[in-house]
Amino acid sequence: MTITTNYLPTPEGLYFEDFFVGQPLVHGVPRTITEADCTLYTALTGSRFALHCAKTVANAVGFAEMPVDNFLLFHIAFGKTVNDVSLNAVANLGYAEVTFKRPAFAGDTIKVVSEVIGLKENSNGKTGVVYVHSTAVNQDDHIVLSFKRWVMVHKKDMQTKCAAPQLPELASEVSSTQQVIPAQMNLADWPDYASDSQLKASEFTVGDTYFHRDGITINDSDHSLATRLYQNNARVHFDQHMMNDSKHGMRLVYGGHIISLCRALSYNGLGNGIWLSAIHSGSHCNPSFAGDTIYAQSTILEITNVADRDDLALVKINMLGIKNNSPEQMEFLTRTVDGRKKYHNDVVLDLELTVIMVK
Amino acid sequence: MTITTNYLPTPEGLYFEDFFVGQPLVHGVPRTITEADCTLYTALTGSRFALHCAKTVANAVGFAEMPVDNFLLFHIAFGKTVNDVSLNAVANLGYAEVTFKRPAFAGDTIKVVSEVIGLKENSNGKTGVVYVHSTAVNQDDHIVLSFKRWVMVHKKDMQTKCAAPQLPELASEVSSTQQVIPAQMNLADWPDYASDSQLKASEFTVGDTYFHRDGITINDSDHSLATRLYQNNARVHFDQHMMNDSKHGMRLVYGGHIISLCRALSYNGLGNGIWLSAIHSGSHCNPSFAGDTIYAQSTILEITNVADRDDLALVKINMLGIKNNSPEQMEFLTRTVDGRKKYHNDVVLDLELTVIMVK
Amino acid sequence: MTITTNYLPTPEGLYFEDFFVGQPLVHGVPRTITEADCTLYTALTGSRFALHCAKTVANAVGFAEMPVDNFLLFHIAFGKTVNDVSLNAVANLGYAEVTFKRPAFAGDTIKVVSEVIGLKENSNGKTGVVYVHSTAVNQDDHIVLSFKRWVMVHKKDMQTKCAAPQLPELASEVSSTQQVIPAQMNLADWPDYASDSQLKASEFTVGDTYFHRDGITINDSDHSLATRLYQNNARVHFDQHMMNDSKHGMRLVYGGHIISLCRALSYNGLGNGIWLSAIHSGSHCNPSFAGDTIYAQSTILEITNVADRDDLALVKINMLGIKNNSPEQMEFLTRTVDGRKKYHNDVVLDLELTVIMVK
Repeated sequence: MTITTNYLPTPEGLYFEDFFVGQPLVHGVPRTITEADCTLYTALTGSRFALHCAKTVANAVGFAEMPVDNFLLFHIAFGKTVNDVSLNAVANLGYAEVTFKRPAFAGDTIKVVSEVIGLKENSNGKTGVVYVHSTAVNQDDHIVLSFKRWVMVHKKDMQTKCAAPQLPELASEVSSTQQVIPAQMNLADWPDYASDSQLKASEFTVGDTYFHRDGITINDSDHSLATRLYQNNARVHFDQHMMNDSKHGMRLVYGGHIISLCRALSYNGLGNGIWLSAIHSGSHCNPSFAGDTIYAQSTILEITNVADRDDLALVKINMLGIKNNSPEQMEFLTRTVDGRKKYHNDVVLDLELTVIMVK
Repeated sequence: MTITTNYLPTPEGLYFEDFFVGQPLVHGVPRTITEADCTLYTALTGSRFALHCAKTVANAVGFAEMPVDNFLLFHIAFGKTVNDVSLNAVANLGYAEVTFKRPAFAGDTIKVVSEVIGLKENSNGKTGVVYVHSTAVNQDDHIVLSFKRWVMVHKKDMQTKCAAPQLPELASEVSSTQQVIPAQMNLADWPDYASDSQLKASEFTVGDTYFHRDGITINDSDHSLATRLYQNNARVHFDQHMMNDSKHGMRLVYGGHIISLCRALSYNGLGNGIWLSAIHSGSHCNPSFAGDTIYAQSTILEITNVADRDDLALVKINMLGIKNNSPEQMEFLTRTVDGRKKYHNDVVLDLELTVIMVK
Repeated sequence: MTITTNYLPTPEGLYFEDFFVGQPLVHGVPRTITEADCTLYTALTGSRFALHCAKTVANAVGFAEMPVDNFLLFHIAFGKTVNDVSLNAVANLGYAEVTFKRPAFAGDTIKVVSEVIGLKENSNGKTGVVYVHSTAVNQDDHIVLSFKRWVMVHKKDMQTKCAAPQLPELASEVSSTQQVIPAQMNLADWPDYASDSQLKASEFTVGDTYFHRDGITINDSDHSLATRLYQNNARVHFDQHMMNDSKHGMRLVYGGHIISLCRALSYNGLGNGIWLSAIHSGSHCNPSFAGDTIYAQSTILEITNVADRDDLALVKINMLGIKNNSPEQMEFLTRTVDGRKKYHNDVVLDLELTVIMVK
């Protein structure tokens, strides 16, 4: 039997001109988070934040089971959005209002929906910026995570006329009242040895800064495994044959993997900052590739006490990721040029986040 | 105390002249499939077929728990047979009658037995082809998988006289009546968004073809981890020191890993083909190595409706794996020369399989 | 708002002069061992010891669930000690009295404490040897593992005067009466096929030796994932940027990963040695790096019957790890020069251990 081949167009995601403000996107492939996801996350990042490592510690602070690390939750939720939002992205430009509403546990199933909240064509006519608000809900339709991000996306056809820019309002931070302290969490009985008796919120002062000292070199399989685990299917992370012709000639490491490595490195100094409650802003300042060694530096930006809570405080942190270098060898990490923040070429991440810290 | 060393011969598997037709092989190391196997499989392949990703989706179509991906089940069962059947193999030549009899779930334990069903010495006197029929049973002795494969195996001693060829009868396909639709499966309530609202069986026509667009580059650790997970101990996949002296100078990627990568890539276009019911035939046309980027192309060969079932259809597919190339750059993928099918050097896989697809 | 950066010293572990004999160390980050740890261990090592692979086999010999492989348990417990004991280590010198007191199961939480039991400054004034006794307890405060190790640790300040050496008494072996046969273990019904019908304790003689034939090449991600899984945060394993300036210019593979690879390779010949009861002594004779292919050789040192037990025996083994070579190509593996044991440059591991073997 002879079969006549009829090539169908393979789904290839949305281009800039396919988006409109108010557009709802129901992302495919909902995902049950397993205990194995959490264990693999440890193997991929080396994270040691004790709440996610030991059931005994989780129990001591009010959780019946170890909660899922919110960074892992974020990557899984983010991964869901890629197929619709950023398959044709040039770059992931930024994050805002990343708010963790409710802890997730192994066995929970995450489904993600997004709404397009802003669009701005670039003057070159080749690309535009798409702003989306994404929401992850669990199997009971409770929101676990809400976040906004914006990406630069290719136009399919440079001739297409696009509408005037519509820019969303983005808060410069998640206010402390919007941040959620998990209902069951009580850190009064936090076992100090669990986090190697590091400093507590009450012992820090605004401006305190750690260069976290340890470095972690990214192997090709490390970032590939992580990015596949999150089911993030952006081609730039996986297809070396295609990337041979790109500017750097290498696959790009998913920016979220850099975030997780920096977070894991920050344990050494910030080990009592046990729970991510918000990411206020973030940018991937320079790309990372397999072979790069990642270091992290954290600066305390703000320490917010919570009414009637002696056990914990909200600690706002600026976390910088650095590759193949250390601050003492660098003339600057960031500096302001003509009113704009500029980064050293070896700075790969600039994140502002808040963690709940043992007080 | 001085101990006199007495070297024992290390078990090294069977050679061609050790096999006889009718020979039973009870393979060692039964294997409990864990939830972690399934999660790792996602990390190793990037697979996004929704039935294996979300408990909510599994529940919606009749399963109490997420079933194990039949490709994973196949690799684990195949791995069990290597120590007896193909430790001294030159090449894995083909598969036939691969039939999935019953879904497997995390917690099930697989034990595999084989029977030698055919033998044919090669004219060079150095090797021969061994045909085996393998059966995987679960902890309740229910058959979950049955398959036939044939491999070219070294003779230990070229001087050994072997019996005349005994060739098995091999069906050219698993008939649709032999294919099992899991008893609990009802796709009437399949949530379309779960598979990114891709085409359904009723929307395809024979001959429809997707080049699946995405590529995935194989890293050394990726295929090593996968092949160890399946406890496939063939030396060619692991021992670079030995392979330095081989034709290509590199470890060979386990062919099953290529199958799984192609399957994962085929999600983009065939996302509704949620369940593997049979592999009719397969061959690994060319070897793959770390560094290769794998692409996949699928052609619909047949769409078979099932009596009294409006929810699903059996869709027979020809899946080709391609490395470091794409069809539009290739003069041909396969062609017939002197009555025999020949492959482009960049074609690494030619598989015919049937999936149960949402209708 | 301008924030004034105030650099804090990042915790960097203890230096030789920070230790004193009798010093208690309560290690941070207790760790719940998950089923996923066990599955990942299979993927990382390719281990096939059947008791840890199949619930049916575990049940057949008296366990309600598959016990955790004691090698995995050891690595997790060892990893806990690194942050306090060996973050500033030059080399991990040896192990003694490694005794497995009680089986661990998925879900158990391990917490580790150590006591400094000996100190000896080196004559160069730059380093010293620290001896510690470490104990891992589970969530019920039952001891699961007890071991001693000694490491060469940097002094922070060469000028510091240190006390006279205090050397601990170290037993040359864990006596058979100190070794624990798990209470539930009964190997009378061991299914022979499960371990590929290999030799049993009653069939071995002292001096019997296997070169295990298979080799496994270490990939960068393999050892990085393993070492992160064990939360061993020694910088030499992870920070290539730093290691560029080291003697070999490469990250060192965690010695424990070599132990696990050798153990996994030893399945082929010693597949009935299903349970690690003790490690008597061990040393990492030469370093290993990504790209090395590891082989193993085992020699039976002693076979000890147990009163009233016909089902099992204690088998003491000398396990040697070899890289990129095989014994028949090597003039010697070990030899005595001036009364001291010397190793071939390609020998990477010399371990004496006892396994419980099916009799």
